[in-house]
Formats: sequence, C-alpha cells, structure tokens
Amino acid sequence: MASQQPIMTREDLIAFLDREFPQIHEGGQTYFLEEIGPLSARMRMEYRDRHLRPGGTISGPSMMTLADLALYAAILAHIGPVALAVTTNLSFNFLRKPEPRALIGECRLLKLGKRLAVGEVSIFSEGRAGVVCHATGTYSIPER
Amino acid sequence: MASQQPIMTREDLIAFLDREFPQIHEGGQTYFLEEIGPLSARMRMEYRDRHLRPGGTISGPSMMTLADLALYAAILAHIGPVALAVTTNLSFNFLRKPEPRALIGECRLLKLGKRLAVGEVSIFSEGRAGVVCHATGTYSIPER
Amino acid sequence: MASQQPIMTREDLIAFLDREFPQIHEGGQTYFLEEIGPLSARMRMEYRDRHLRPGGTISGPSMMTLADLALYAAILAHIGPVALAVTTNLSFNFLRKPEPRALIGECRLLKLGKRLAVGEVSIFSEGRAGVVCHATGTYSIPER
Amino acid sequence: MASQQPIMTREDLIAFLDREFPQIHEGGQTYFLEEIGPLSARMRMEYRDRHLRPGGTISGPSMMTLADLALYAAILAHIGPVALAVTTNLSFNFLRKPEPRALIGECRLLKLGKRLAVGEVSIFSEGRAGVVCHATGTYSIPER
Repeated sequence: MASQQPIMTREDLIAFLDREFPQIHEGGQTYFLEEIGPLSARMRMEYRDRHLRPGGTISGPSMMTLADLALYAAILAHIGPVALAVTTNLSFNFLRKPEPRALIGECRLLKLGKRLAVGEVSIFSEGRAGVVCHATGTYSIPER
Repeated sequence: MASQQPIMTREDLIAFLDREFPQIHEGGQTYFLEEIGPLSARMRMEYRDRHLRPGGTISGPSMMTLADLALYAAILAHIGPVALAVTTNLSFNFLRKPEPRALIGECRLLKLGKRLAVGEVSIFSEGRAGVVCHATGTYSIPER
Repeated sequence: MASQQPIMTREDLIAFLDREFPQIHEGGQTYFLEEIGPLSARMRMEYRDRHLRPGGTISGPSMMTLADLALYAAILAHIGPVALAVTTNLSFNFLRKPEPRALIGECRLLKLGKRLAVGEVSIFSEGRAGVVCHATGTYSIPER
Repeated sequence: MASQQPIMTREDLIAFLDREFPQIHEGGQTYFLEEIGPLSARMRMEYRDRHLRPGGTISGPSMMTLADLALYAAILAHIGPVALAVTTNLSFNFLRKPEPRALIGECRLLKLGKRLAVGEVSIFSEGRAGVVCHATGTYSIPER
C-alpha cells in the first residue's frame, strides 16, 4: 500500500505533466493543477470558445478530460512520476449543464493499491455549489 | 417507444451535426459519420498529432468524444433532430492502447425509450480486431 | 426540483419499505434504515452465513443490494413514497474485501431532478475507516 | 495473454463452482451454467418468489448476481480454477422490467489480460428479444 501522504510537490508534478504530456496544453493551457493533499488533488479548467456547446455550456469531453487529469495527478502525487499508469475505467454522471465559468475538479482517492488506484472526482462551476459532473475512475499501476 | 428504424438519413444527420455542433470540427474535421442502420451508427475518427499521447497512442478523451458522438448520432437518427438530448451517464473500459490508426466507433442502441435512450459503443483500430475501448451511455430525451 | 430536505420521517419510510418490499427481509431482516438527513440516508446491513463467501468476506451482491436500498431510501425520503421509482443505472467499485462485520452504506444525493435522481453510496465495515465499496446510481422518477 | 479458447469444460467448472461457492445455491439452486465457448459463457437463472418485486418483476440484485456469475464463469473457463479472482468493477444499465420468466445472461469477454479481465453481459428474459439489463465488469486476476 502506497503512502497516504503525497510524495511529490505540486511544482514537481506540474513540471512532470508539462514535460510528459505537452499535448494537454494544445491550443493554449486551460488545465491547471491547483493543489495536492493527502489522497486528494484539485485541478482547475478555464474554458475557451472551443470548449463550448450550443446554449453556452461546457462540453462533456472537456469535463471528462478534467476528471481524468485530476485523478491522474492525485495518483502520481502519491506513487511518484510513473508515466505509464493507465486509465482502465472511467464512469461519469452528468448532473447539470455547466454554465460558461471555470470548472474545478476535486479528486479524492478511494484506494491506492499496489496494482490499482481508484478515485472519485466532483466537478463544480467555480464559485457555485452543486456538482455538475461526478466521475469515478481506476488506474492500473505498472510494477515497480 | 420510438421506431427501431432510423428516421433520418446519414446526409441529413451530418448536415444537422455540422450546423448545430460546429465545435466538434475545431482544428480540422476528424470525426465522420459513416453509417446509420437499425438501432446502430458507425462513426470514424481520424487522428492528428493533437490526439496522441506519449508512446504514440491515441488519447482517452479522443475515444470518449468518439463514443459520445456515435451514441448521439445513433439516437438522433431514430428520434429526429432533437438538439437538446443530453448525456446523463457514460462509462468506459479502456482495454488496449490504440496505436496511431483511425478509430471506428460502432454504436448499438440497447433501449430507445420515451425519456431515456441507452446504447453501447465498441471502438476498434481501423483494420484490426480487438476492442480498444468499450463504452455504455445514456441520453435523456426531452419531452416532445 | 424537489426539496433538499427530507419530507418523510425515518419511521414512515421504514413502514413504507416493510409494506411494499417485504422480500428484502426474506430469510430474516438484515437491512436496517438508520438515518435520514438532507440529501442523505444511512443503511446498515447485518450479515448472516448466507452473505459470506470463501475466506469469510461478505458477498458482492449483498453490498450491491445495500447500495441500491440506501439510494432508494434517500430518494424516497425526499420525493415521498413513490414505489415506482426504478433504478436505471448502478456502478460499483469494489475496493477492499469486507471482513465479516456489519456494513454501513452512507448515501449522498448528487442530484434530485424532476425525472432523474443521482446519488453515491460509500460502504464501510462498521467501526472501520476505508471504503470497501463505492457505488453511484440513477433512479428514474415517474411523473407525478 | 491467456488463450482465447476455454481450458475448462462446463462440467469441471460447474464442479468447481459448486465446491467453492456453495452459497450461491442457498435456498435452492437457481443459477445454472449452460454453456462455455470461446471468450463466452451463458448462465441461466430460474426465479423463485424470493426474487420477485412488487408488480411481479425480478429484482435488480438477482440480475446483478447473474451478471457477476456469468462473467466469473467466463473468466475461469479461460484462465483455470483461480478462486481468488475478484471483481473490481461492475456497471449496470437496467433497460426493461423483467417479467417473471427465467433469465439468460450471455457473457462475452472483451479482454483477457494478465492482470485484468473485462467482459460484458447481456441479460434477456428467456424466449424474448430485448435486453432487460446490460452489464460490464472487470476482474483482477491474481499472479500465477
């Protein structure tokens, strides 16, 4: 069982993500790692026109990307920079249409095992109560 | 219960999607509706550099977008151009890393009710056997 | 949008469940509604030999039943005794093998809409930290 | 990668399940393994009064148990009698209320990896078209 305390700082993790996954900033950076804590991480997403859908809501794929990234960041923070951890399962409930505001993804790890890590992510519109999207996900962790 | 036969042609549906969701072609069109059938639809995704991840695999969010679009197309084809149908749930199992090849999303509707439509999508690398990602999803259908 | 405060008391809800779903007590009552709160409910499950699996862990179906019941109770408490609310989706992550102890299912509603209600349930072994099973689920609510 | 051909016969697998999981026959046997094939298995469930819910439909937990068992049988048939394979994830879409008839669970494996096996199960009312419940699930396979 990995430690329940993060072993990477926010700065180290940001540097790792920028180096290994430059594609997530394609078209201009919109995903920002805000905080790392015990079994948790918070990721913020600013929106651009390209993230909007008819009616001015933020697209589902933008939220799914945010959830996946928040979960990945939370896991790496606790197991170290293992680029090859891979998502095996993601489940989403879309609860409310997100208005055009920045989105906050709050990730909480539910399990941090030797082979699998599982977490949930609640996505909020910044400054608003009420979850707009809830996700759960599993990562498979390579042998170390 | 809606008809089990599509009521929109592929051409009408493409025109509808292009008009209502131009954002899905942002950065150059990569998602193409290939076929509509009874309770089914097939969507093809060409990849660009922006869809790749380290190791040359196609990103999870690209596949999630493909699955959501294939399901949306299959539903609209059978209920007509209801822009306001919204995804309420999506679940993904990521099974193999997709090599850099076009992806095919085969959608099959499991239920086409008055309020909810449910389907599954199997995503393949073009010309390869073996599902790379499997999705199930639910759309809520507005009252008509 | 339904009220965020329960409109049924715990006693009324227990009486309703006992009357409408006597089958859940088949073989001797093991599921007990412990508490109702704003957008929440807590259900307790005592185990019998019939709930055990090799190694002395409590079976998956027992936990799935507990989660479904906790979600149903939380929803009914807020919308009133609508026997015909039906589960449309349930997703489970099994995180740890539950030892032979009573299980506690803590349900929190994420959305209480006119047509759909969505919630999550965290299941714990009584007196232990660490979620053994996490569930999310959706109920379809009949028109009233 | 395990073989895509089953390595246990139906008879051996039935004997293994009866010996290791006698609890699934608690109250009288209702789950029957009908067939094993390449990456597939079919399980049949007869119903008793204890499986019914108001309105005469078969309960959700009965269907969830059927899906989990069908998936477990399909996996064991291909990897051999590994009692300790454990479910890590199950997702269900409940599509139609099953009338009081025997249920058939058709499992198809989507992935049979070294550490994880993933499959889907379509549940039908015997002699009827139309999926009543669709499930996907993941098992973690112990090192051998």
